Formats: sequence, C-alpha cells, structure tokens
Amino acid sequence: MSSERLIYLPLGGAGEIGMNAYVYGYGAPGEERLILVDIGVAFPDMDGTPGVDLILPDTTWLEENADRLEAVFITHAHEDHVGAVAHSYEALGAPIFARAFTANIARRKMAEYGYPDDTVTTASPWPEQVTVGPFKVGFLPISHSIPESAALVIDTPAGRVIHSGDFKLDPTPLVGEAFDPELWAEVSKGGVRALICDSTNVFSPNPGRSELEVGPNIEALVGAATGMVVATTFASNVARVKTLAEAGHRAGRSIVLLGRAMRRMIEAAVETGVLVDFPTVISAEDAQDMPRQNLMLIVTGSQGERRAASAQLARGKYNGLELQEGDLFLFSSKTIPGNEKGVIRIINAFSEKGVDVVDDSTGLYHVSGHANRPDLERMHAIVKPQMLIPMHGEHRHLREHARVAEAGGLQSAVVVNGMMMDLTGNAPTVAAYIETGRTYLDGSVQIGALDGVVRDRIRMALNGHVMVSVILDEDDEPLGEPWCEIMGLAETGSSRTPLAEILEEDLSQFMGRAGDKTLTDDDALEEGLRRIVRQTTQNEIGKKPEVTVVISRLG
Amino acid sequence: MSSERLIYLPLGGAGEIGMNAYVYGYGAPGEERLILVDIGVAFPDMDGTPGVDLILPDTTWLEENADRLEAVFITHAHEDHVGAVAHSYEALGAPIFARAFTANIARRKMAEYGYPDDTVTTASPWPEQVTVGPFKVGFLPISHSIPESAALVIDTPAGRVIHSGDFKLDPTPLVGEAFDPELWAEVSKGGVRALICDSTNVFSPNPGRSELEVGPNIEALVGAATGMVVATTFASNVARVKTLAEAGHRAGRSIVLLGRAMRRMIEAAVETGVLVDFPTVISAEDAQDMPRQNLMLIVTGSQGERRAASAQLARGKYNGLELQEGDLFLFSSKTIPGNEKGVIRIINAFSEKGVDVVDDSTGLYHVSGHANRPDLERMHAIVKPQMLIPMHGEHRHLREHARVAEAGGLQSAVVVNGMMMDLTGNAPTVAAYIETGRTYLDGSVQIGALDGVVRDRIRMALNGHVMVSVILDEDDEPLGEPWCEIMGLAETGSSRTPLAEILEEDLSQFMGRAGDKTLTDDDALEEGLRRIVRQTTQNEIGKKPEVTVVISRLG
Repeated sequence: MSSERLIYLPLGGAGEIGMNAYVYGYGAPGEERLILVDIGVAFPDMDGTPGVDLILPDTTWLEENADRLEAVFITHAHEDHVGAVAHSYEALGAPIFARAFTANIARRKMAEYGYPDDTVTTASPWPEQVTVGPFKVGFLPISHSIPESAALVIDTPAGRVIHSGDFKLDPTPLVGEAFDPELWAEVSKGGVRALICDSTNVFSPNPGRSELEVGPNIEALVGAATGMVVATTFASNVARVKTLAEAGHRAGRSIVLLGRAMRRMIEAAVETGVLVDFPTVISAEDAQDMPRQNLMLIVTGSQGERRAASAQLARGKYNGLELQEGDLFLFSSKTIPGNEKGVIRIINAFSEKGVDVVDDSTGLYHVSGHANRPDLERMHAIVKPQMLIPMHGEHRHLREHARVAEAGGLQSAVVVNGMMMDLTGNAPTVAAYIETGRTYLDGSVQIGALDGVVRDRIRMALNGHVMVSVILDEDDEPLGEPWCEIMGLAETGSSRTPLAEILEEDLSQFMGRAGDKTLTDDDALEEGLRRIVRQTTQNEIGKKPEVTVVISRLG
Repeated sequence: MSSERLIYLPLGGAGEIGMNAYVYGYGAPGEERLILVDIGVAFPDMDGTPGVDLILPDTTWLEENADRLEAVFITHAHEDHVGAVAHSYEALGAPIFARAFTANIARRKMAEYGYPDDTVTTASPWPEQVTVGPFKVGFLPISHSIPESAALVIDTPAGRVIHSGDFKLDPTPLVGEAFDPELWAEVSKGGVRALICDSTNVFSPNPGRSELEVGPNIEALVGAATGMVVATTFASNVARVKTLAEAGHRAGRSIVLLGRAMRRMIEAAVETGVLVDFPTVISAEDAQDMPRQNLMLIVTGSQGERRAASAQLARGKYNGLELQEGDLFLFSSKTIPGNEKGVIRIINAFSEKGVDVVDDSTGLYHVSGHANRPDLERMHAIVKPQMLIPMHGEHRHLREHARVAEAGGLQSAVVVNGMMMDLTGNAPTVAAYIETGRTYLDGSVQIGALDGVVRDRIRMALNGHVMVSVILDEDDEPLGEPWCEIMGLAETGSSRTPLAEILEEDLSQFMGRAGDKTLTDDDALEEGLRRIVRQTTQNEIGKKPEVTVVISRLG
C-alpha cells in the first residue's frame, strides 16, 4: 500500500485565467483512480484566435485514461469552470456532480447537446459527501460572485485535500452562503494535506470588500437619476443583479432584463431557490410604453462584447429600447484585461448620444469576487494546510501566491498545466510532465491549437491572399494565361496598374520561360509561381502575401 | 473685411487619441489661408486593422486645398503628432516648422523618405513668431513627457488662439522647460479668443505629479536590486530615461540602451542640446563581459510590442543579453488601453524565468505627461480664453472637458474630426462638415479605411477561405472536376472525410446538374458554386467561409 500516491494535475487554469480543469488521483502510480474538478472554457480574441468560438482545455491525457475517471465535480457555474461540460462529455463519459444552481446551469448546457438531465447529479452541501472510488468529495460553501460556489473537500487515503474553487471571504454576500470561518476551521482541524487555492487577486494588497457595500452607492446613484437607467454586470453575479434591481425598484422604476444570459441566470437562480424576493420584471415590449424615468434596464455585455445588449444599445435600438441624452449607463463591473477597447468603444458611443456613463473607476459600484492577498493569508491561517498549491492564475499570480504561502511557513510550489504533482510526501514533488494545451471549438468542430488552421487565418489577415490558377494541356504546355485573384490586398501599387494584371503578366512570362522540367513537376511549378507572386507583390505594394496555387492538367 | 473668418477644423485627434491633425484658417469663407498643426499617426491592431503598418489621418480635404496651405507646425515629437510628416509631405507640399528637438526627429523621418533636411525649419521658442499668410505662430514652451513640447500661440486678424499641444503643468520636468505660469499669464493677458486644449486626462481627479517625484523611488528600487536591472519606458520620455540612467549610475551600474528608438531618441536629445550630463553608455557587447549586478539596461517596449527589446528579452536572448532568476524588470510606464495583453504576456514570461517584475500599480515609478482635471482648470484660469475647444481625446474626454470648461464659465463645444468651426463670433459655431477618416499605410501603399481591403482580411481571419477552380471547354461543358483549396478551415468535419473532397464532390454534382443557362453565365455559375461551398462547409464544420471562384473557359 505504501506505493500508492495522491496526485494533482492541472490540465487548464494553472498558468492562465480561464478553462479550469484540475485532475486529482489516488492509487498505484499509473493506476490512480481519477476525478476531474471543473471543465471550463476560455474566450477567443482576434489577436490570437480569430474566428474561434470557444477555447477548451486539451483533455487528451484524461481521455486516454477515461477508464480511470470516476467523476467530474463542478465548483460553480462560471463559464471558465463549467463551460466545456457538454463538449467534453462524450470523450470523458463520467458522471457530473454539482450543487443545485450549478447543476441547473450545467444541465442547460448538456441539453443543448442533446444529453439528458440525469447526466448531472445534484449534490448537497457539506457535511454530505459523494463517494467515488477512493475519494469522498464534499461541497463546502464559500462566497464568490455567483450563487452556491463551493470549495471541494476531497478525502483520500493520503489525507484531506481542499480545492478552494474561486472564492472571496464575504460575510454578507446577499445571495448564497456567507463565508463561515468557524465551519472552515472545523473542516480543517483534523489536518489538511493540501490546499489548492485561487490566486486571481494575489496582487491586490487590501482586504476584499463585501458585496453588501455596493448597495447603498448604487441606490444613491439610481435614486438621483432623472432619465432611463441602464446597468450592466455579469449575468451570473445574481447578488449584484438583485442589488441593481432593488435599487431600481426603490426608485420607483420597473425592471427590464435584457440579454439571453441575464434572463437565463435569473431563471436558474429562481428555479433553484437561491434567489427570492426579486422585484417584478417587465418585458422590453411593455417597457416601450413607459416613461423613461420609470425604467431600469439590467443588461448583458459588461465586457463590451459586440453582440451583447450593452453594445447593441450603444449602437442604437435594442428590443425597441433606445438610450438618449440624459440617460444613465452604469458599469457595475470591472473590465477584464484585454476587453478595454470594447468597453471604451461603448462608452464613447454613449457619450455621442449624450448618455452619462458611470464606470468603476471610483470603486463605488463594484467589488471583486476573488480573495485579495490579506484574505488569502487569512484562508491559509484558517486551513493551516501542510502544503499550499496556487491555482487559478497566470504564472505571475501562481508565483506570487507561492511566495505568500512560503512567507507564512507553508510548503508550496508553482504548478502549471501539465505538471503532475505527487502530494503524498512532506512537500509537493513533480511526478511527471503531461502534454497539455488548448483545443478550439471552431464552428461545430474541435481543432487543435497547433493544427495550423488558425495560424493560416492569422497569416491571411496579416498578409492578404493571392490565388493563382494555371492550366496545362496534354503535352504539359500552358493553356491560356495564368489567372490571379487577390483578396485583402491593395488593388494597385507602384506601377499604378491593377496588381492582378501585373501578377498575371509576370506569371505569364514565367510560364513562357519555364522548361519542361518545371512544367511537368507540380511542386516545382507551384514553387516557381508562388515565388513570382510574392516578389512582384512585394515590389508593387510592399507585402508578401499568402499564395494558393491551383494547377489543372488536362488529359 | 467683416466677411473674413477664423476657422478650426480637426482632421484627426478629436474623437480619438492618436493621429493628430488640426487645421486653422483665416480669410473669406472658402478662401481661408490655412495652417496645419501636427500630422501624426495611430497604431494598428489585430482587432480592426490586421496587417496594417500605420494609420494616418485622411487629409483629402487638405490636399484638395493644398494651394491654400501655408505651413505645417509640429508641437512635439510624439508619433501621434509627427509620425505622418514624411508620408504626407508629397501631397501637402508645405514647409514644416518645429523646435530643434522636434525638428531633429522630423528630419530623420523625412530622410527615410528621401527628403532633404531643409524641408523642416527649426523655429525658436516664444517670443519669436513665424509669419505665414495671415498668421503669426509662436512656439510657447510647455512641459510634457518629451523635450521641447510647445503650445502654439496663433495670432490672427480675429485675435489670438492658443493650441495647447499635449501638456502637463510640471514645475520640475528635469529635461526641457518647466511650466511657467507667469509667462503663460503674460501671453494671455491681451485676451485669448480660443484655447484649443488637450483633454487626455480630464477624468483624472487629482492634480498631476511632477517628473521629479519618481526619481527617488526609482533610485531606491535600483539601489536595492541585487541582479541585473532592466527598465522600460517610452524612448521619447528623455527625462525618464535620464532618471533611470542616473539611478543605475548611482548604484554603480553601467548603462546599456537597447532598442533602436531608445538609442535614436537619446542621440537626438544630445545632438540638440536638450540632454546634458547623461551617464556614460556602454554597448550590449561590452555588457556581456560584466557582472550582471553592475548592469542596468534601459529598453524599448513598455507597451508589450512583440518586436521591441522588452518582448525579446522576455522570450530569450537579445543582443547577447539574457535575464535570469533574481533579476529585476521595471515598467516605468503606464499601459495604454488595448496593450494590456501584450504587457501581461511579458510579465508572465519573466515570471517563468524567475525575474521580479515591478509595474506601475503602486504609482511610484511613473507619472503621466498630461494635465489632470484640476490642472486643466488651472490652465483655463490662467489663459481665460473666450472659448475653450477640447481636443486630443476620445468623445468621452472631449465631452467631459467641455463640461469642465462650461462649469468654469467658458464657451465650449464638443468638436470632433471633420467639424469645421467658425471661431470668429462670441461662441464657436459649426461652419461645415468635412469628410474625414483614416488612411492605412499597408506595406508601401496607402489604402482607404473603407476600401474593403482590410475588411476582406478580417473576414478571411474569421471565416477561413475556400478557393474553387472549374474549367469549361469550347462548348461550355465542364472539363475535368472542380478543384478546391481550403485555407484556415478544419480539414475534416462531421463526415470524417476531408472537407476538400466533400466540397469537390458536391461541386461536381452541381456542375453535372447545371444547365446551359448557368454554365454559359459566369456570374450565375460563380454564385451557384459559392452557394454550394458555403452550404456544404456549414454542414460539415459549422462555418461559412469566404469563397473565391476561378472559372477558366478554354477556346
């Protein structure tokens, strides 16, 4: 039995913020029984992943070991934790466990892919535990910016591990359970081998603020508004949506929820009983007949997403509603790095309409859902784990969190995706390196990040594209003239003659000069044509385009 | 004479931060003699302008009226003010005036395009004035984050106008002239018709801080460092570069400048005498033989630019130098919105190497070069203009700045690119709307932002590209099979057969079915083939690609 071990292997989320996927295992090396904690997505951008729909963790290793996988546990319903639950189900085939609200959201995702509700099992919170293989897993409530977030208490023959999930230490989260330090101390008092811990806000030096704090500020702002009020936040931040709705309600405004995610989240929260006493909501249609000073819209799109409600309102009418001079738009949210341009675009569009925009620069209208550095230190002190493994962070976050842990006397290690750690000893040690990466959901198919598909798209976007078609007859002699189509390139350059014409002329000369050896060899011919296209285009317009050559041979 | 008027027309920089270009005119309507203040660039990004090299203001209106253009005045040497000076010279053909340091930089740009040094005239600072047409223009020194920034005092028959340029109110800027409130009051005391004023930091509520403040902080940080120290800032911030170099020098370190812009800016500052007593600099080559604790590198790339020195050091060796565990990297800079991802990428790469990164989150190591709201109010109070026109800002900045001005009792207006304002009356009024926009430098040619070239590139990046080639014989009958080449699309989809094969099969069937009416009509045939490609690709992989069809007819 002494050869059995406890392993931890992040496949996503360690070394990045997004697409969380953490494997725990227990057993003889190579035969450990496994559980997966979270299976999330990350979001694409034009910079590195143009045209991609979603980014998923590469779970190849887990698929190859699917026979050892006992179950999947979802800590909470944020997309970076639950978003890939349906996409990965066929390949992993393991039962899924989550608390009621999270399970509700997960089942909606499963249903979209045609899977029945019973693929997801609703788990009760701690002290209940789910037994799978050598593991007993309990959902320990913790406050976060979404209802029913849970840490996982994972009991193994090698001791207790706590996987924090995303969390903050909020005594008054408004919706969902408050952080309960006594309960956490109680759970930890028998000794915790390892705390695998959220690192997102490790660089924030002050203690985190409670969700309760923003209420009065929002109420004062909405109370003083004279036109229509529109507020945006993450739809999943049900407590914030409630705070916003109540502020509107108290100011005598009817509440309208705009955006699919907004309505779906509130529906899930009501269905599962986590949200009660939500003010009455009216439809966008009914709102059109009401005086604008009696309306409060709560809308999706806090990150400036082009197709969300906020961006559509910035551009014009949405669901028959339109903002105008004197209205107020509130970002009750923080802009995630990388989304600044989209958010600023919206603010400027509203500015052109004369709408007053209030953002979080004052700190009055938003609080973070993650534990700041002093909160992390407090959590370390409550749990007193033998080792602290930072997760849910970019490399800089993990490194800093490990430093904080070590400064507090804990064993720690910077563990990034693909590092299989043995947690059985006194300190974490590397057991193996597993290949990990990213998979792209692109349209309806999954492609590997290194397949070259997206790389080709980026190249076309940077360099433009020239297509060349040549035809050769039965005797390998050119038939007619080469034909060029250009896409994404200037039509004329230094010669002031259409680029396509100049290319065709140069290609035609090349074909005329080319000997049998070139004309009979597709590769040589293609290479020759490509070289001409790139050279001529460089001379004409100073760019070296991507080139596709089609050689048609008759007979 | 009463029909003559004073006009102001921003062609770039009003409604955006970047590519500044402001026209002033005086004379009978439609016959005003003109001057241009600044001719800058903006920088492209993957989001909206993939593959573009530079974004220039569309100066079509000015080119059409080039015979009325007396001169171009450059306020300072930042790229968004001087960057397009060479690209626009041929079309505008007007003499260029600037102070010595700015002129030095401008001449370097002109030389790259083959223009002689005398295209740029060095102007002395206020109280000297350059007389061009009905204008007398003086360069009034003002502090900013680059040496010899100047406001322009533009005297016209309709009174004095002050164009602030970019500025802050710094009593101790270290390099270049301090802000001199007495001089400004003196210049303004005869009455100022209009102050056209920088709006960048109007949302910053506290008074701006002096360049002097960062010195001791940087000195403390560098003094305590034990490994190699690397610092990045904008190369043009010569005062900061000097502060960094002096901190290194005092800590017994030899200074190395890395990056072309860094060396060029320091060279220009020394040549023009604005920089004196700069510590001795050693070459990267010599630095390789020195103990790392005796080195301080000052490098380009504060915005995370992929090809700049900081990004190259993050990836590995640069000029033979490489960072390692225990070294320190300092961002003595602010990240411009939109550049966050690039900067964070670098921080994480250094984190992986064990390099400690210090950024500006504490506010200790950087101060802004722009006037904050209280500074703007102070400037308004010193100049006491009849009207205040906000410039150098996005719409939100201009609107807020106009509010601040109006709250202070000044006439104001939100004037964006293309609005020709008549400043002759008591308040600014709109005289005309001029078409403006952006021009892209793409390779070696300029293309219009609305030409569709970049739009096509974005579409290829989002949707992928399929190229189809079909051949028809003398009788308009298909010859051989249709041929497909795909680029930027998954190779296989739902049928598990290569997409290209499936496309060719479907296209072949279509050609077989197609009647004479389609086969003899290129447009109909192309449309039919395109439809099949999009349908089949949608079915197979869930994407609708861009399609290029080449139809070759023999005989």
